[in-house]
Amino acid sequence: MGNEQLEELRKKLDDVNLQLLDTINERAKLVQEIGKVKSAQGVNRFDPVRERKMLDLIAENNEGPFETSTLQHIFKQIFKVSLELQEDDNRKALLV
Amino acid sequence: MGNEQLEELRKKLDDVNLQLLDTINERAKLVQEIGKVKSAQGVNRFDPVRERKMLDLIAENNEGPFETSTLQHIFKQIFKVSLELQEDDNRKALLV
Repeated sequence: MGNEQLEELRKKLDDVNLQLLDTINERAKLVQEIGKVKSAQGVNRFDPVRERKMLDLIAENNEGPFETSTLQHIFKQIFKVSLELQEDDNRKALLV
Repeated sequence: MGNEQLEELRKKLDDVNLQLLDTINERAKLVQEIGKVKSAQGVNRFDPVRERKMLDLIAENNEGPFETSTLQHIFKQIFKVSLELQEDDNRKALLV
């Protein structure tokens, strides 16, 4: 009985993992679009004020069980790799 | 025009951030449930084989733009904090 329950929960976890994967990649595409608009405007891609606002939004909307600090740490990681993605796009654009 | 476009993209990004927040917390609740089942069975919470399988699932389903290694790094962070959440639950259960 316990094993069946465990298998069912694990199946649900796999589904949630795939949902997370899709959402993170969907987010990356948006960040790439933002990078293009900023690049056309000649604006710096890294915007600490905007990052702060996004982290505040996480804090305001967090209903747990994760602590806000834990979630903000994960989001900061996502921000970091997103910025790297924009920089790669920029380098490729310069090489064309 | 460029600024309007930027504002629209940022609004979309905020929505995606909130969706990510919900999914990460939904994942945490599932992990807590799994922790309870494992605890009742006296099974160790950390399962490297299961983690490997979850990372393989990410690799198989990644359509980009993020590199698989980048995504796996983010997921490993999420696994780590999830395990910590299970350990906290366990400590609280022992203190009751």
